Amino acid sequence: MSRLQRMLETHPEPAGANGDEARRCIEACAECTQTCTVCADACLGEDNVAEMVTCIRLNLDCADVCHVTGTLMTRPSHRDAPALRAQLQACVEICRACADECGSHGDHMDHCRVCAEACRACAVACETMMAALVP
Amino acid sequence: MSRLQRMLETHPEPAGANGDEARRCIEACAECTQTCTVCADACLGEDNVAEMVTCIRLNLDCADVCHVTGTLMTRPSHRDAPALRAQLQACVEICRACADECGSHGDHMDHCRVCAEACRACAVACETMMAALVP
Amino acid sequence: MSRLQRMLETHPEPAGANGDEARRCIEACAECTQTCTVCADACLGEDNVAEMVTCIRLNLDCADVCHVTGTLMTRPSHRDAPALRAQLQACVEICRACADECGSHGDHMDHCRVCAEACRACAVACETMMAALVP
Amino acid sequence: MSRLQRMLETHPEPAGANGDEARRCIEACAECTQTCTVCADACLGEDNVAEMVTCIRLNLDCADVCHVTGTLMTRPSHRDAPALRAQLQACVEICRACADECGSHGDHMDHCRVCAEACRACAVACETMMAALVP
Repeated sequence: MSRLQRMLETHPEPAGANGDEARRCIEACAECTQTCTVCADACLGEDNVAEMVTCIRLNLDCADVCHVTGTLMTRPSHRDAPALRAQLQACVEICRACADECGSHGDHMDHCRVCAEACRACAVACETMMAALVP
Repeated sequence: MSRLQRMLETHPEPAGANGDEARRCIEACAECTQTCTVCADACLGEDNVAEMVTCIRLNLDCADVCHVTGTLMTRPSHRDAPALRAQLQACVEICRACADECGSHGDHMDHCRVCAEACRACAVACETMMAALVP
Repeated sequence: MSRLQRMLETHPEPAGANGDEARRCIEACAECTQTCTVCADACLGEDNVAEMVTCIRLNLDCADVCHVTGTLMTRPSHRDAPALRAQLQACVEICRACADECGSHGDHMDHCRVCAEACRACAVACETMMAALVP
Repeated sequence: MSRLQRMLETHPEPAGANGDEARRCIEACAECTQTCTVCADACLGEDNVAEMVTCIRLNLDCADVCHVTGTLMTRPSHRDAPALRAQLQACVEICRACADECGSHGDHMDHCRVCAEACRACAVACETMMAALVP
């Protein structure tokens, strides 16, 4: 069991019915934060950096949004609030946009291909979390 | 003229028609990030901290969301994208929630009263920015 | 192989001799960011929250510092610079302080015990990284 | 009086003898976070982006480090701790590195010149803060 999982299970206000979705969402946000941060830096190191500017900007935005979304997910008392729902929606939007842009470079840049995978996985995890929220 | 304003005016891709709204939005997000961060810490220092838990959590969420929203606003190439719009909406939601909670303590806690003002100002600045976005 | 590892291996400027230390440091910083964020929120949910104020503040500081340290570690061109070294040192200091505080509550609070483990592991990973930097 | 100043003055644990230095440090960190974030995006929009890669990476690092340093400065209970001192030192280092790099482009890029000013001001504010800490 990961330390994150142990932390969430010993929280005095347990996550309840949607605990698995919450943990997976936190993990997916953390992974996407990492891959986007590395991808932005990797794109900056490519010879054709001038063609990667849109990708770099989306990577930076996506890393920031995923980080804050994952952070909000760890404060369980807000889990059904409109603000959390709106933040998850913002994360879905930026992850899709970043996945599309990274995916378009994936044939010739491995870091963009892996990053696009992480962005798509994070969008799915956030959508699954939204569906699991008590209305 | 502030350094932020000088920075935005010398950006090679100027903000265009909604430049004033953009700058005010960035400034309001930065201010709300600060007031919420201080308010969370101030609430932690109050004798009745047990009654301030919801306020502290909202302050922390609001500070994080405002910071990332302000950061996204500085990357002008994305300024009309669905992801930015969704992030501004998330910022409006958390600012309103935090303003309501802080405002409810404003009679007897000055830091909560000032913080509620900053949250409301930030919500308005984000809504004004959304209205100024080209559809 | 994790997505992070795949990202780092396909970066156009590979990390070189200290690549393993770098990856472990990034992973430890990300984990400590998560455990400290959860621990702060868990402490806020405890009945004796008034006794947990120092722990909450250290958790919040430690989460923020670990996140930025991990982020800097992914930009390999700076890997030997004085600023990275100083940031790693700051991370070691806050991780030790947070581990001591969390550890003092570990007997009766499981989340503090697990968080103290993550803080200590992160301090070690940062020290190992500093030792692996080319002088 | 700014909202930040009003917040700090109504904090239940006032900053004491070094309150002015603390507020100026928080303000300088916030400004430098903004200018570096804009500068990174502005550099990405320049025709010679390939020559600006080092500047972009330093801007991103500096924005992140200044933000976390300013955040730590708002939690006054830690104000004399080794971790805060180390974080201030890290901020001085990255601000100097970023000021040097931005300053080298300042003759022909206005955003780099203004950003270099903000970096230098932030380094001074952090050093002044460190000197004001009770040993």
